[in-house]
Amino acid sequence: MSKTTRQGHGGFEAHRPGIDYGILDELTGYAVRRAQIRVTQAFDTRLGGAGLTTQRFSALVLIARNPGLKQTELAAIMGIARSGVLAIVEALDAQALIQRRPVPGDARAQALHLSALGEERLPAILTAVTDHDREIAASLTPDEIAVLKALLERIAP
Amino acid sequence: MSKTTRQGHGGFEAHRPGIDYGILDELTGYAVRRAQIRVTQAFDTRLGGAGLTTQRFSALVLIARNPGLKQTELAAIMGIARSGVLAIVEALDAQALIQRRPVPGDARAQALHLSALGEERLPAILTAVTDHDREIAASLTPDEIAVLKALLERIAP
Repeated sequence: MSKTTRQGHGGFEAHRPGIDYGILDELTGYAVRRAQIRVTQAFDTRLGGAGLTTQRFSALVLIARNPGLKQTELAAIMGIARSGVLAIVEALDAQALIQRRPVPGDARAQALHLSALGEERLPAILTAVTDHDREIAASLTPDEIAVLKALLERIAP
Repeated sequence: MSKTTRQGHGGFEAHRPGIDYGILDELTGYAVRRAQIRVTQAFDTRLGGAGLTTQRFSALVLIARNPGLKQTELAAIMGIARSGVLAIVEALDAQALIQRRPVPGDARAQALHLSALGEERLPAILTAVTDHDREIAASLTPDEIAVLKALLERIAP
């Protein structure tokens, strides 16, 4: 058995030989989880070399489209814990893609903005991620993608 | 804006008022991610009180069905880092649901087994999770659930 779990695209086997998944194979929730792991690993393989992760990319887009966003807001939007958002923001800051600015009247808050470098890099990042997203859904027709998205929205509404 | 991100079921809004999601709304990968966040938060709300998370539950089922599984194997099966699996295994151990036993001939490995308490609790846990899974997919017909699962399997294959 492989000793690494992050071999990237193809490293995660939905059904590992010899393993009994029991009830997991029947659960809709686990089917979503399984797909999400594959999506994340495919993203890491394709874009991890550029220092991007799915979460950092989402944060970058949200900051770009909503300048001045606070970290607490970003955590709520992304559905993750504030500790998780802090790690993401620090990584983007270390890559000089964003800036954290003080918020007048709130000493504890920081407003998030793209840096000049972030603005410069964003178009290429968007293109790379759009290409990657097309790749992971390459075996689905446009209609099937629309059906998939519509059904996903009705899960745990 | 809410200061908590883990309000549970309903706490995560797919589209937060006033927020521009930009390209994220177009990405199939983000649609999967969004659904997975809602599934996880619904699970936490329903079963978090019992000390369960989606990951702990998956690990528990995999250990129950594959007694003697090693942590490195569990990490690979679940598609997560070994540090993540360690935290999950330690939580299940602290809840006395599993046992870690030495592996003859491999001083560094541990074989995972359900404890007597784990065996005793498993049936009720399986029932609760199955009920929960039916709930999150309650607005879908059985045919739609089958379509959703089939389409999910074709993403990032």
